[in-house]
Amino acid sequence: MEVTKVLHMNGGMGDASYAKNSLLQQKVILMTKSITDEAISSLYNNLSSRETICIADLGCSSGPNTFLSVSQFIQTIDKERKKKGRHKAPEFHVFLNDLPSNDFNTIFRLLPTFHQSLRKQNMGEDGSLFDPSNCFVTGVAGSFYTRLFPSNSLHFVHSSYSLHWLSQVPDGIKNNKGNIYLTSTSPASVHKAYYEQFERDFVTFLKYRSEELMENGRMVLTMLGRKNEDRFSQGCSYEWELLATTLKLLIAQESIDEEKVDSFNIPLYNPSPSEVMYIVEKERSFTIDILKTSEIQRNSCDDEKYNMAKSFRSVAEPLLVSYFGHDELNMDQVFHKYNQVIANDRKAMEKIMFVNVTVSLTKIN
Amino acid sequence: MEVTKVLHMNGGMGDASYAKNSLLQQKVILMTKSITDEAISSLYNNLSSRETICIADLGCSSGPNTFLSVSQFIQTIDKERKKKGRHKAPEFHVFLNDLPSNDFNTIFRLLPTFHQSLRKQNMGEDGSLFDPSNCFVTGVAGSFYTRLFPSNSLHFVHSSYSLHWLSQVPDGIKNNKGNIYLTSTSPASVHKAYYEQFERDFVTFLKYRSEELMENGRMVLTMLGRKNEDRFSQGCSYEWELLATTLKLLIAQESIDEEKVDSFNIPLYNPSPSEVMYIVEKERSFTIDILKTSEIQRNSCDDEKYNMAKSFRSVAEPLLVSYFGHDELNMDQVFHKYNQVIANDRKAMEKIMFVNVTVSLTKIN
Repeated sequence: MEVTKVLHMNGGMGDASYAKNSLLQQKVILMTKSITDEAISSLYNNLSSRETICIADLGCSSGPNTFLSVSQFIQTIDKERKKKGRHKAPEFHVFLNDLPSNDFNTIFRLLPTFHQSLRKQNMGEDGSLFDPSNCFVTGVAGSFYTRLFPSNSLHFVHSSYSLHWLSQVPDGIKNNKGNIYLTSTSPASVHKAYYEQFERDFVTFLKYRSEELMENGRMVLTMLGRKNEDRFSQGCSYEWELLATTLKLLIAQESIDEEKVDSFNIPLYNPSPSEVMYIVEKERSFTIDILKTSEIQRNSCDDEKYNMAKSFRSVAEPLLVSYFGHDELNMDQVFHKYNQVIANDRKAMEKIMFVNVTVSLTKIN
Repeated sequence: MEVTKVLHMNGGMGDASYAKNSLLQQKVILMTKSITDEAISSLYNNLSSRETICIADLGCSSGPNTFLSVSQFIQTIDKERKKKGRHKAPEFHVFLNDLPSNDFNTIFRLLPTFHQSLRKQNMGEDGSLFDPSNCFVTGVAGSFYTRLFPSNSLHFVHSSYSLHWLSQVPDGIKNNKGNIYLTSTSPASVHKAYYEQFERDFVTFLKYRSEELMENGRMVLTMLGRKNEDRFSQGCSYEWELLATTLKLLIAQESIDEEKVDSFNIPLYNPSPSEVMYIVEKERSFTIDILKTSEIQRNSCDDEKYNMAKSFRSVAEPLLVSYFGHDELNMDQVFHKYNQVIANDRKAMEKIMFVNVTVSLTKIN
């Protein structure tokens, strides 16, 4: 599986789209706001008032969340500006990045709405309007495990819920049969292969970002991770286990080939805070300002707008389609079965716990 | 008709797509190469070797032509670099712009092919390879009649076959009945309204670009225009006249409502060189380095790969769809009829002559 060609959330604005099913990711962005606020405020306070602020959001996906982070950065900076009594609002150059298979057309069609909401949100207390026309948004298609921007061109890099995706399914995990990700029954060699792939990928990421960031550039990254070294009590991979169960049931009813499922693995890794710290220190381009975990339960989002299975589908479907193909595997059938699996596991909702590892970094000059 | 929401070439890679039907536009880019070469070489020779070269292509559309211009700029600069004996190739930040309805997803999916061809084309005489990984491409969705980029952020702006599109259908042309664009039977007031809309739009364009370009920034613009002040002997609008004839035939067979056709007009203007010169001088942000016309006949492209009606369809269809709606007007029917109209007009191919007005500009500091 060529991850850079395959990995993307469900596009468009339909019922199964990521745009319509990303409330959890939205909550995470709000939960980590204090950390991004600190980074971006301190960054702004060190800039001259005439400088254009260049911001990249990596793994922006397509939907309302795409603009949520950027919207927050701009609001935070506008508050700082007013505090400092600076008259002129800075210009922003915003780079929204995701893989080439991401639905950028949807992002671009949402731009007018984004500009409108910026205008409303940033209305001054004196009734004066913030002018969103100095916020210039661009789309950048490519893997963040490659260079994406010119040298020394960015002030701030942000990435939420993307860096736990690996650049490829690790090599040497053929013996992970019956599983589609790390579980308690996976052999030690599979654990090692998954961690080492994450380390290689994260080092690559840090190296390239340090080339692209300007002096004193800041970066805030949130990954779907673990609280500590204990891997299997934390529920971060429980949704994938439910999917593995689903696929086994489909094998049993001969809807799908066992061998094909055996070699299917998810290009994902959930790091612990100490793994993140170890790799950042080893790579040596950045200092860590803040390293923090937070938790969110899947069912905390289980309101009317939200449906757990739909939300998971918007993430998992493209991976399944690219591996099995639409002809071999009927996606409605898969997620119908998946819904039954959840219904039979009364505690599924409680077991699915997401741990967010957030790290705030400053480039070492 | 809200042009910024509507105007785009047919997307995707299908039979009626712009990507598959834009050979003429490609020829025009090649015809005007010497002018862009001169501008970009002189620009490069005034830069320090470490500077990232920032280039915007406005109205890039989606298809092979999207990358053709950029590819040429990079090749030209690489040749200059070798001439100057500079060791290190510069980094490029490339901004591909079109309206939000343009198919950016297709552009982004063509990026790997673009990088591959850059690598091949720029192989050194010593067999050494040009490294295309320092060419960073981004997509920018928005009308070029608004600000698109931060202040002083661009070295070079290029636009080919886009600026003859107006920001809106001119007001006050209700009396242009029976026509869908300027023809010899259009009243003088309609001519005036079209020209004035072009002047307003072009002035807006020049003003915004002068804000976005750096000191000594360069700009090369090619528009579908006229050789001189004589408007109707030049064939530049003949395709639209054939479309008007087609629509009249559809009215006659009651496939379409006459009143609706009467109020349909194309947001397009074909300026003469002296009109372009007059507006640039009046606006005062740029000096003119070169102002040149060239000609190309529609049938010069009539080879196997190319079909005149298909090419016109890829441009005209989105305008028709947005105005009449898919339900009211069957596009296959329209272009089937259009083909008959061409077939009955034996000299149609000869009459369709495109005049390109190319202007090369330098920003006045």
